[in-house]
Amino acid sequence: MASDIIRSGIGRRTGIALWRQIADAIRAGITSGLGDKHGKLPPEMELAELFGVNRHTVRSAISALVSEGILRAEQGRGTFIIQPDRLTYPISKRTRFSASLAEQGQRGESRMMSHDVMPAPEEVAQALQLDVGAPVLQVRSVGVGDDTPVSRATAWFEHARFPDMADNLLRFNSVTRAFAACGLDDYVRISTRIEAYHATLDDVEILRLSPGSIVLVTFAINADLEGRPVQYSKTRFAADRVSLQVEHAPLS
Amino acid sequence: MASDIIRSGIGRRTGIALWRQIADAIRAGITSGLGDKHGKLPPEMELAELFGVNRHTVRSAISALVSEGILRAEQGRGTFIIQPDRLTYPISKRTRFSASLAEQGQRGESRMMSHDVMPAPEEVAQALQLDVGAPVLQVRSVGVGDDTPVSRATAWFEHARFPDMADNLLRFNSVTRAFAACGLDDYVRISTRIEAYHATLDDVEILRLSPGSIVLVTFAINADLEGRPVQYSKTRFAADRVSLQVEHAPLS
Repeated sequence: MASDIIRSGIGRRTGIALWRQIADAIRAGITSGLGDKHGKLPPEMELAELFGVNRHTVRSAISALVSEGILRAEQGRGTFIIQPDRLTYPISKRTRFSASLAEQGQRGESRMMSHDVMPAPEEVAQALQLDVGAPVLQVRSVGVGDDTPVSRATAWFEHARFPDMADNLLRFNSVTRAFAACGLDDYVRISTRIEAYHATLDDVEILRLSPGSIVLVTFAINADLEGRPVQYSKTRFAADRVSLQVEHAPLS
Repeated sequence: MASDIIRSGIGRRTGIALWRQIADAIRAGITSGLGDKHGKLPPEMELAELFGVNRHTVRSAISALVSEGILRAEQGRGTFIIQPDRLTYPISKRTRFSASLAEQGQRGESRMMSHDVMPAPEEVAQALQLDVGAPVLQVRSVGVGDDTPVSRATAWFEHARFPDMADNLLRFNSVTRAFAACGLDDYVRISTRIEAYHATLDDVEILRLSPGSIVLVTFAINADLEGRPVQYSKTRFAADRVSLQVEHAPLS
């Protein structure tokens, strides 16, 4: 059964080397039972037969996945799947990055990479309900959980309303606390859009992804309790490392 | 600016042919302003210069994207981006497939491909709060909007509680109505997990994707108003064609 699922991952993919296809198929197969209960992969010969390719191709695929941190070769014992420990990232009215990581026993933090005041481009102006060109603070950051980059984000804030936001972000390293220091005690998520894209070279570098990886992208708007937008963010998550978990309102 | 974004899409991607990389980079560039306001791409020569490759490579990339339905070549006028008209798929307590498509002026329907009663595997049993091996109805379907396949889903229902579910689904072609005919007048979404994967060959065939495409996968549980799970579904969306829009609870 697992082999059907796995084999369906390869085929006539044009322009992609066979070993890369096999690597992708093994990666896909990992979630559908390719490993045994200890996470051990079948031997190379068996994989070669399963995929209808020769051992060299399988070996190239496996060594790519080892260097990508997906498999681990143990001398004399075989090749094992490294359990990715997918990080569950809740999406709710009260989504907070560091809080959600802490709940999972992980140390999470957001590291600011750059900040700039700039005229709002159309997309940002629309999200923040500002005029195009109104000054906004743009902040780039990387979200790190347990020393592994999980996401990279660009966030925008209305500069006129929160002139000290950059300083406060640098001081507190927390959006929630920076808003509080700007006089905004509470805010809620009012909109989250989710799409998926191929990783760009920047994603590959910053999120330490393997080439051809996928990023989940969220487009989120936070608002004050009157519903006025206070933050627009685009966040690119390493899809291999996260599940986004929508928290629905309780039954009522 | 657009060119920076675009160029960051290519680089040292191992195992992937250059024209395929250029095609992916053009595809990525489409969302970041590669086309002019009419959606027209720069001429081949300019693209070749932009990506630092020769015209033949650009031409191969473009013709792949034309055959994938992403670009349209107009004799004597140039190459144009086909606006994908991304379908917004709401995720909320009250998510309904056909209703959400109808709201966007699209005719949406779910076509049942197969149904089977089978013993619940562990994942399904856990989601539906049943014993492993308890009989469940498994239904495979394809979600179609305006004649384009948007998603493929596998759903499971407790067979003992809804023995006529398959018949009712066939009769009404609507989960909501089939549940109603089984005596369940209302249900709500209690959990949605979202991940992203590379398309399998089955995805490529059934969703008419191009090789190397991405699928957004949702794992959803619906429950009756007492919170008892009534449906577990895994849905694979063509990532190029959809945005998932989380509907957060209203401010309160």
